[in-house]
Amino acid sequence: MTMKQWLLSSTVALTCLVSTAAVAGVTENYSPVTAARLENPEPGNWLMTRGTYKGWSYSSLDQINTSNVKSLVPVWSFSTGVDSGHEAPPIVNNGVMFISTPYSQVIALDAATGDLLWRFKPKLPEGFSALHNTNRGVALYGDKVYHAGLDAVLVALDAKTGKVAWQATVEDWKTGYYMTMAPLVVKGKILVGVAGGEFGVRGFVQAFDAESGKPVWKTYTVPAPGEPGNDTWEKPDTWKTGGASTWMTGTYDAESNTVYWGTGNASPWFGDQRPGDNLYTSSTVALDGDTGKIKSYFQYHQNESWDWDEMGAPLLVDFQKDGATTKGLLKVARNGYVYWLKRNPDGGISYINARAYVPQNVFKSIDPKTGRPEVDMAHKPGTGKAAQFCPGLWGGKDWPYEAYSPKTGMVYIPSNENHCNNLEGKVEERVPGQWWTGVAIPDLHFSVDTKASFYGELQAYDVDSGKRVWRNLYPASMMWGSILATGGGLLFTGGTNDRVFRAYDAKTGEQLWHFKTNSGIMAPPSTYEVNGVQYVAVQSGWGVDAAFQQGLMSELVGWQKDVPQGGVVWVFAVSK
Amino acid sequence: MTMKQWLLSSTVALTCLVSTAAVAGVTENYSPVTAARLENPEPGNWLMTRGTYKGWSYSSLDQINTSNVKSLVPVWSFSTGVDSGHEAPPIVNNGVMFISTPYSQVIALDAATGDLLWRFKPKLPEGFSALHNTNRGVALYGDKVYHAGLDAVLVALDAKTGKVAWQATVEDWKTGYYMTMAPLVVKGKILVGVAGGEFGVRGFVQAFDAESGKPVWKTYTVPAPGEPGNDTWEKPDTWKTGGASTWMTGTYDAESNTVYWGTGNASPWFGDQRPGDNLYTSSTVALDGDTGKIKSYFQYHQNESWDWDEMGAPLLVDFQKDGATTKGLLKVARNGYVYWLKRNPDGGISYINARAYVPQNVFKSIDPKTGRPEVDMAHKPGTGKAAQFCPGLWGGKDWPYEAYSPKTGMVYIPSNENHCNNLEGKVEERVPGQWWTGVAIPDLHFSVDTKASFYGELQAYDVDSGKRVWRNLYPASMMWGSILATGGGLLFTGGTNDRVFRAYDAKTGEQLWHFKTNSGIMAPPSTYEVNGVQYVAVQSGWGVDAAFQQGLMSELVGWQKDVPQGGVVWVFAVSK
Repeated sequence: MTMKQWLLSSTVALTCLVSTAAVAGVTENYSPVTAARLENPEPGNWLMTRGTYKGWSYSSLDQINTSNVKSLVPVWSFSTGVDSGHEAPPIVNNGVMFISTPYSQVIALDAATGDLLWRFKPKLPEGFSALHNTNRGVALYGDKVYHAGLDAVLVALDAKTGKVAWQATVEDWKTGYYMTMAPLVVKGKILVGVAGGEFGVRGFVQAFDAESGKPVWKTYTVPAPGEPGNDTWEKPDTWKTGGASTWMTGTYDAESNTVYWGTGNASPWFGDQRPGDNLYTSSTVALDGDTGKIKSYFQYHQNESWDWDEMGAPLLVDFQKDGATTKGLLKVARNGYVYWLKRNPDGGISYINARAYVPQNVFKSIDPKTGRPEVDMAHKPGTGKAAQFCPGLWGGKDWPYEAYSPKTGMVYIPSNENHCNNLEGKVEERVPGQWWTGVAIPDLHFSVDTKASFYGELQAYDVDSGKRVWRNLYPASMMWGSILATGGGLLFTGGTNDRVFRAYDAKTGEQLWHFKTNSGIMAPPSTYEVNGVQYVAVQSGWGVDAAFQQGLMSELVGWQKDVPQGGVVWVFAVSK
Repeated sequence: MTMKQWLLSSTVALTCLVSTAAVAGVTENYSPVTAARLENPEPGNWLMTRGTYKGWSYSSLDQINTSNVKSLVPVWSFSTGVDSGHEAPPIVNNGVMFISTPYSQVIALDAATGDLLWRFKPKLPEGFSALHNTNRGVALYGDKVYHAGLDAVLVALDAKTGKVAWQATVEDWKTGYYMTMAPLVVKGKILVGVAGGEFGVRGFVQAFDAESGKPVWKTYTVPAPGEPGNDTWEKPDTWKTGGASTWMTGTYDAESNTVYWGTGNASPWFGDQRPGDNLYTSSTVALDGDTGKIKSYFQYHQNESWDWDEMGAPLLVDFQKDGATTKGLLKVARNGYVYWLKRNPDGGISYINARAYVPQNVFKSIDPKTGRPEVDMAHKPGTGKAAQFCPGLWGGKDWPYEAYSPKTGMVYIPSNENHCNNLEGKVEERVPGQWWTGVAIPDLHFSVDTKASFYGELQAYDVDSGKRVWRNLYPASMMWGSILATGGGLLFTGGTNDRVFRAYDAKTGEQLWHFKTNSGIMAPPSTYEVNGVQYVAVQSGWGVDAAFQQGLMSELVGWQKDVPQGGVVWVFAVSK
C-alpha cells in the first residue's frame, strides 16, 4: 500500500457524509411538528429560530433562574467540525436537537446526551463562494427538517435519518443569490428569503409546499412595472437589480395571517444611481400568509445609501399607548432607531413612534405622522461624493436578535456605538454574480472613536414608556450577541470577542454568571427541557461580519485580534 | 472594493500569525525553568509532557479528589482552530499554559482565565505532508519554549512573546523525517527524536544547546559498520534505511545521568528483507545524558515484522522483588507485554520479567534470563508470506501514556484487544521521502473479533506483584486515552469515540465523573494549580491513528464513525 492509499483508506474510513447509524430511541418516536404546535409551541421545546412566531427569543421556562444560575455548568458539547461564524440556534423538538453550521451542514443530536444522530453535509457546487458562509437555523414541520442552503437550494430532510426528502432550487447561485436565513413555516408552506444585496439581486420571499417542495408563491420585494411602488424606481431598469434582499427570517401573526419580513439595502449602495424611494428596500413588508401578496409595508429610510439593511423582522409586541393596549410591531432598526409600529387588524402597518437607541448623525428628524426621516445630505454618501455616517454600515445593530420578555415588559438590544463609515460611490457595470456595491474606495473607511469608553452595549428598554431602563457597556469589544430571555428572569448572550457566554438579570442587567467558551458567540442561544431538566444551548464559533467589524475595530483600537476558530455546540444545566 | 478585496481585507484583519498583544501581567513575571526545577518540579506545575522525568504522568495535587470530583466542571475552554488529532498535554509554568496542536502551532494561554497570550503558527513548507500531522507537546527551559516541528525543524520560542529565538533544522523533511514528540530537556540540552519509520529513515536522538541551538551530539539508533550492533544487520546496507525511529519522548534518570528512549519498528516492515536482530529497533536504548553514547539497551522483539514500534519510553518505577526494592524500569510494550526491567547503577538495563497484558499469538515463550521471545513463525508475516498476528499493528497499546501512581503502587494501561492484522510483504524500491513499508496488499487487512464483548480497556496492575487489580472494559470503542494519575486518588482519561472525559477511582476503577467534550480525546491530561485552585486540563481533538483504527473498527463492527472534528482546550475545576 502506498502512503496515498493509506491516507485515502483512512479518509474513507473516517468521513461519513450522512451517518445512518441513528442512536436508538431518540428519533424513533420523533414528534411531528404541526401548524398548531408552531402557533403555540410547548415551553419545553424550541421549534423555530426565535422560539415563536412573535420573534421574542423568549422562553417561559424558569427552572434555571436568577437564584440558581450561578450553578449553571456545561453538561455536554460537540464540535461541528466547521470554522467561521456559527449563527444558528439549537432547534429542539422533544429531545432531538437540530443545528446548522456554516457551509450548510445540518446536524441532529440527542438533546440530553449530545450523541450524534445524523449529519447532513452537502457538497457545495464547484466554484461556489458566498460573502457570508453562515446559516441561521433550520425549520421544522411534519417529520421534516428544512434548510436553506448557501447555494440557494432549499432542502427537506427526514428528521429521523437526515436523508434528503426533496430539494428545490430557489435561484441560480451563479447570479449572486444565496441563502442564510432559517426558513419560516406558515400553514404547511416553507417560506424562504434570499441574500445577495451586494451582488445586485432582486429580493423576494418564496413559499414552497412542505410536502412536495413545489413552489406556491413568490413575491418580489422590488416591484416590477405595473406593480404598486415601481414608480419609486425613477430611473428605468434600476428596479431589476434593486436589492431589497430578504436574508433574515420573518415573523408571523397567525390571527391576521400576515408574515412580516424585513428587506435589505438597495443595490448598488449609492442612492443617486437609483433615484426615488426605492420600495421596498430597507422596509418591513406585510405579506398575506396564503398568497404572499404585499398587504402593507413600512420603509425605515428612503433611497438607501448607508448599507443599512432593515432585514430584521419586527417583533409582535403589544404595548400601552394612550392608556390602551396597542397590537404592535417593535422594530430595532439598523439605522439606529427603535420603531413602535401598529399592527392593524388586516395585518397592515402604521407608524406610531421612533427613538434613537444609539447616536446617529443622518436623520435630522422623523415625521411624527409617517415615520419618514429627513436626511442630512452631508451624511449621505453618493457617487463621487464621500460622506461620513454614524453608526457605520453595520448599524446600531446588525442581524443578532434582540429579545422581548413579557415578564419585564422590556426589549433587550445588543448594539454598537462610536463607529462610523466614510463611503464614496462610483458607477460600476454589473456582472451577474459579481460584487456590485459601487464603493469607489478600496476599503470601507471604517472608523471608531478611539477615545470612546465603550463600543458594544446591551440595552434594556421598557416597551410601554420607550425609556431605557439599564444598559451594560463592553469597553473592550463590539457586541454581536443574540439575546435569549427566559421566564427565570434571565438573559443569555455572548457577542463579545472574549469568548464569554453570560447570564444577566433581566430586570437589572446585573451579570449573574459567565463561562468562557472555545470561540466567540454570535449564535442565538435557545432553551429547552428534556426529562424534566431545563437546558440552555448555544453554538460558539466566531466569524462573518462580527469578526470582520471586530477585526477592523481591534486593528484601530489596538485590541487582540485572534478570536479562536472552531464551532462547538454547548449545552448547560444547573449542577445538581 | 471588489468582493475579493473585501474578503481579503477581512482575512488580513482576522488572522494574526503571532499576536504581540500579550495580556498584561501573566508573562511579565514568567518564571525561568531551571535544571533543578525539571528534576524536582513543584506540584502546582506541569513542566514537561509526562509531569516528571520518571514518566509517571502523575501529580501529587489532591485538592480535586475522590470525594469532590463529582463537582468538577469546565471553567474555560479554547478552540485551537485546528482539526485532527490533538496529542499534547497542556504544559503549565506558574500560571502560563503552553499547548501545541497538529500542524505545529504553539499557543500560550493564561492558565487561570484562558486568555490568549500568543500564538505561534508556522507556515509549513510547500508540498509538505506528514503521515501523522500531530504534536505531543512543548518543552520548557530558561525563558524559552521548545517545539519539534513536523518539518523536522526544532524551534525555540520566547516564552513571553512567542517570538522565534532560534531554529535548527534537524533533518531534511523531504527525505521522510518528521517530528511529533515533545523535546526532552536534559541539563541545558534539548533532545529530540524523529518519526519516519514508514519512509525508511535511520532513527536517531539528537541534542541541541538550549541557548544557542547548536547541535551537541547525535546518536543513531541503527549502528553503522564498526559500531556495536551493526552485525545484527546481516544483509549489507539494510542498516542505512533500518528505521528504529525515535518518535516519542524519552524518560531520564538524573542519578545515573541516563536517558531512556524508545525506538520504533524496523524498515521496511518485513524482517526477512533485513535478516538479523536489527538493533536497536523496537528497543529501549540507554543514552548518556552528556554525550548521547549508548550505554545499554533492551530489545523487546527481534527482526521486527509486525509494525510494533516500541517507541514508548519505560517508566522509572521502583518495585519490590525478592523482598527488596529494585530500581526498575516498567515498560508497557506495543507487543502486548509489560516488562519489568532493572536500572543498573550505571544506567544499564537488565531483564527481570514480563507478562502479557492482552492476548498475543506471536510469542511462544520468553526466555526468563534474557527476555528474548521465541516467535511463532506462523504468525510472523514476511515477503510473499501472509500471516495473521494479534494484537494488530497498533499493538496492545500504541503511544497513549500509561500512568503510575505511587499512592496505589499501580500502573494504569489504556489498551485494546480483539483485533488483528493479516499482512504480507513484497520487495519495494525505496525512494527517499516516499512510503516504504513493503506491504504487498492494498489495505491493512485489519480485523476484529466482531463477537467480542469489548475492544478497549483500562487496566490496573500492581507493579510489585504484577497482578491485575482491576480493569474497565469499553464495549463500544477502542481505548486511545493517555492516563493522568493524581494524589487525589484519581485517574483522568478520554480515549473513547464518544467524546467523553472521565475520572476514575485509582484504587477500584470506579467511574466517578464524566463530561462529554466536543471531540474525542487522546491527548494526555495534565493538572496544575494557580492561586490555590487545582485545575485539570486536556485537549479534545480526534484524529491520526486513533481515528484510523477506530474508523476501521467502526466499519467492521457497525459503529457510528463520525467523531466530530475540531480541537478545544478544556480546563476543569471543582465548582464552588
